[in-house]
Amino acid sequence: MDPDAVAKAFVEHYYRTFDTDRAGLGNLYQDASMLTFEGAKIQGSQAIVAKLTSLPFQQCHHNISTVDCQPSGPAGGMLVFVSGTLQISGEQHALKFSQMFHLMPTPQGSFYVLNDIFRQPKGHTIH
Amino acid sequence: MDPDAVAKAFVEHYYRTFDTDRAGLGNLYQDASMLTFEGAKIQGSQAIVAKLTSLPFQQCHHNISTVDCQPSGPAGGMLVFVSGTLQISGEQHALKFSQMFHLMPTPQGSFYVLNDIFRQPKGHTIH
Repeated sequence: MDPDAVAKAFVEHYYRTFDTDRAGLGNLYQDASMLTFEGAKIQGSQAIVAKLTSLPFQQCHHNISTVDCQPSGPAGGMLVFVSGTLQISGEQHALKFSQMFHLMPTPQGSFYVLNDIFRQPKGHTIH
Repeated sequence: MDPDAVAKAFVEHYYRTFDTDRAGLGNLYQDASMLTFEGAKIQGSQAIVAKLTSLPFQQCHHNISTVDCQPSGPAGGMLVFVSGTLQISGEQHALKFSQMFHLMPTPQGSFYVLNDIFRQPKGHTIH
């Protein structure tokens, strides 16, 4: 399958899940998964979901500006780099963000997130 | 060695080389290396250096705001995520950018760049 199409489908699924059922993101991570969220390091699906569901806002909507992807090596992984904005309910301005995912294949032919790094430009923080 | 220290040392070396001797960046890439620069895909050390040295500015200075890193899997690689600003000589405003590197170990105990993705927020382009 076309890697760009896989990356785009993953990104759409990820942020749609984030915006509608944040706890459902747990299925995309495994025990070895790592999240660095605005510098805070978290490991494991359960801890990552706890972090994401405890962010200080409920309703939000991600708008994606760009999606880039590259194969990450012989293990069949894929790097996905996203830029976009995050509109939080009740906030006037959307916040810019950049995020990268390292997707690794599962035996079932799907992907899970091994690495996840999220950053916003300095001046706004939501962590 | 501490991965955060390796990542920081790499980032300082990379942007110092970019700002003073751009052609010298070729030593950090190999034939399998990939660069996605503002959506343009380039492969191989030689083509990557040709792209970077043909950017439409000569003097520039990168300022680094954040460096995050994570191990990328059993092959000993490391993901490095950078945010910062790029000041181009003669331009009034510095440009924000985000960039990610996937570093892989060499037999000599060093690292090379396997993956490199560079993006600026929409509205400014230097490619």
